[in-house]
Amino acid sequence: MRDVLPDEVALRDWAMAQILAVYRRHGFVRIETPAVESLRLLLRSEGGENEKLIFKILKRGEKLQTADRPEEMADLGLRFDLTVPLVRYYAHNQSRLPQPLKAIQIGPVWRAERPQQGRYRQFTQCDIDVLGVASEVAEIELILATTEALAALGLKDLTVRLNDRRVLTAMVAHCGFDAARAGSVFIALDKLDKVGADAVAAELREAGHPADAAERLLALLGRATTPAALRELLGAGAEAAVWTALQRILDTVTGQAAGRFRLVFDATLVRGMGYYTGPIFEVQHGDSTSSIAGGGRYDRMVGRFIGRDIPATGFSIGFERVIGLLLERGSSHEGDGDRIALVFDETMDLAPVLALARDLREQGHPVLLETRAKRMGKQLQDLETRGFRRIGVMGADGTVEWRGTRTGTAGEAGA
Amino acid sequence: MRDVLPDEVALRDWAMAQILAVYRRHGFVRIETPAVESLRLLLRSEGGENEKLIFKILKRGEKLQTADRPEEMADLGLRFDLTVPLVRYYAHNQSRLPQPLKAIQIGPVWRAERPQQGRYRQFTQCDIDVLGVASEVAEIELILATTEALAALGLKDLTVRLNDRRVLTAMVAHCGFDAARAGSVFIALDKLDKVGADAVAAELREAGHPADAAERLLALLGRATTPAALRELLGAGAEAAVWTALQRILDTVTGQAAGRFRLVFDATLVRGMGYYTGPIFEVQHGDSTSSIAGGGRYDRMVGRFIGRDIPATGFSIGFERVIGLLLERGSSHEGDGDRIALVFDETMDLAPVLALARDLREQGHPVLLETRAKRMGKQLQDLETRGFRRIGVMGADGTVEWRGTRTGTAGEAGA
Repeated sequence: MRDVLPDEVALRDWAMAQILAVYRRHGFVRIETPAVESLRLLLRSEGGENEKLIFKILKRGEKLQTADRPEEMADLGLRFDLTVPLVRYYAHNQSRLPQPLKAIQIGPVWRAERPQQGRYRQFTQCDIDVLGVASEVAEIELILATTEALAALGLKDLTVRLNDRRVLTAMVAHCGFDAARAGSVFIALDKLDKVGADAVAAELREAGHPADAAERLLALLGRATTPAALRELLGAGAEAAVWTALQRILDTVTGQAAGRFRLVFDATLVRGMGYYTGPIFEVQHGDSTSSIAGGGRYDRMVGRFIGRDIPATGFSIGFERVIGLLLERGSSHEGDGDRIALVFDETMDLAPVLALARDLREQGHPVLLETRAKRMGKQLQDLETRGFRRIGVMGADGTVEWRGTRTGTAGEAGA
Repeated sequence: MRDVLPDEVALRDWAMAQILAVYRRHGFVRIETPAVESLRLLLRSEGGENEKLIFKILKRGEKLQTADRPEEMADLGLRFDLTVPLVRYYAHNQSRLPQPLKAIQIGPVWRAERPQQGRYRQFTQCDIDVLGVASEVAEIELILATTEALAALGLKDLTVRLNDRRVLTAMVAHCGFDAARAGSVFIALDKLDKVGADAVAAELREAGHPADAAERLLALLGRATTPAALRELLGAGAEAAVWTALQRILDTVTGQAAGRFRLVFDATLVRGMGYYTGPIFEVQHGDSTSSIAGGGRYDRMVGRFIGRDIPATGFSIGFERVIGLLLERGSSHEGDGDRIALVFDETMDLAPVLALARDLREQGHPVLLETRAKRMGKQLQDLETRGFRRIGVMGADGTVEWRGTRTGTAGEAGA
């Protein structure tokens, strides 16, 4: 975990405000869940590898005294994503929520990962989810809203990749894998981007899958350039509705993209979570192969809480990766209004200083008050370096001597 | 801990934005620290009762296997306030931070309290702190900024109470208490508001303090209506500089208050934390005796981290109490722009719906897309109840029939 310095916080706050504004315009409403959830909940979520990375909270007092084994010493944990808490929240508050629910969540999640370059054990996620819409209209809205949010941050070279878990399942069956072991095929296939076809084939063989099935799968993927092409190759495969929905997402979203992003079908896209049931998607920026956002449909997760399936689909922005991209390109955000500093003698009557500060603040300027340092020359230089466009040195009589990079116009701000 | 429903999140987001905007105009910059800190840090902070309420995080893997006793099973904990992490942050990042540092912090803290009405185990605090300013100019800025932030939320009937730990110490010595046991006198005195003078006197006697000292203290408090009056009563008491600073805070802040709030000297104000060293303050709203904000100077806390004292003072808004007040008075915040809903048939071509939504969003309206429900009458009614001012029902040909509470002007929004 890490500290965030003021300049980066300003950039993060700005980015978050941009994203929130786009999502609100798209009719989503923000909800909040606590950082801590019951361990039982977190451990039954099909969260894949993430379940192993939960920070568990030690029981207290008597409850701890009676715990014999490490497994009994904790009953709470820090959330590792925002999807599991959302589903619990929906199950718990359903009658008081709009139906369908279009929810925004922004907040920290925790994973006990080995610290490494650019990966932290506390990081921010930014999700939108639609609960209660079975049709692909929800995916169309998610993709349009998320690409608009990313574009609002100045990220223009965006590629959205689209696939469907039901298509993947049909491919796996078609190639002769054991359908019951589809999950393990998905895990191997998920690495295709990073390790290449040979390594995937090797992993599949080592996992005990038929060698010819692996060959057939990789050959099939090479020819599956469009849903229509893949559908023909698969023959019966997935239901007609799956193909119609995929094609509608592609056509409708592409019709709205207007050059602002690309949407492509990618039969190799898998995504890590076990809980996906339909369309899945990921966003890449520029030439990078790592994704900055991803999501998919998880129609059977709510049902495990309330005993009745509720269609659900969501899109999550990897906020830390996005901030990383913005920092790489030297983005910063100072906030609105020129920053002004007023320097004055510590013992002088503060009334004129405070009156001038009030005027300038009412005009929308952030105004910093600083008592005069012993080395005022260095103090003024430091303030300039920190981005203060106007610096006023107050005399004991309430007069102001303006300095700084905008001396030409700074006088206007004087008392 | 609790879930927050969308309407309250909207109010909270609005309130937070108001507070942040005021603090930024006052030249403060936001910083972020992680939710999790080392237990060693949290336990040496003089955080008083709060240290007993820390949520501890179970060690993992080998580190847990080799732990024999409960005390050894955790080395991390969730922060219980924002002051301790701030001091650690300052010590850790000092060379990369502006000097003096004027920091804003907004974020959740956790305390394992017994759940009770209006108290939660996760709640939000909103602090500003000045590190590196020894003079009372810092307190003047803190009080002006915090009262302005509260006023921006519509809280107008504000009383700020002011005292100084050094004055309290002088009073305790003057009345004949053992100076080394001043802390226990403060703890009893802190309850005066709630339990009355007799109960405080009884607690002091039971704690083994001289009975006549308790009597003298309570009599003194009754006559200590102004710093000048108290100074005369105490004779030598505290240093002259203490009284000068208190009087300057009172005069300067009152000169700026312009009827927007009251600042009063209150010799009975103590505040709970052990780490205060100078001026302390608290804000009350209306007739309520519980505080909605509080703070004080803690000049010796940074020194325990970096071996060199750095003057420090801070003011914390009890965000949950403030939101409670706003909810009591029926405040809500819908966000900017009339909310618009577009209802359409699930299977129709979405292009005209999406084009109209885009236009309206570009005009600043939040636009919700909903596929037509079986019982559309009820659906439209629900949307009106949820505050959608305009509702457009789209025909398959792209025409819009406008409904809702603003039918008179809704046509303007049409395609």
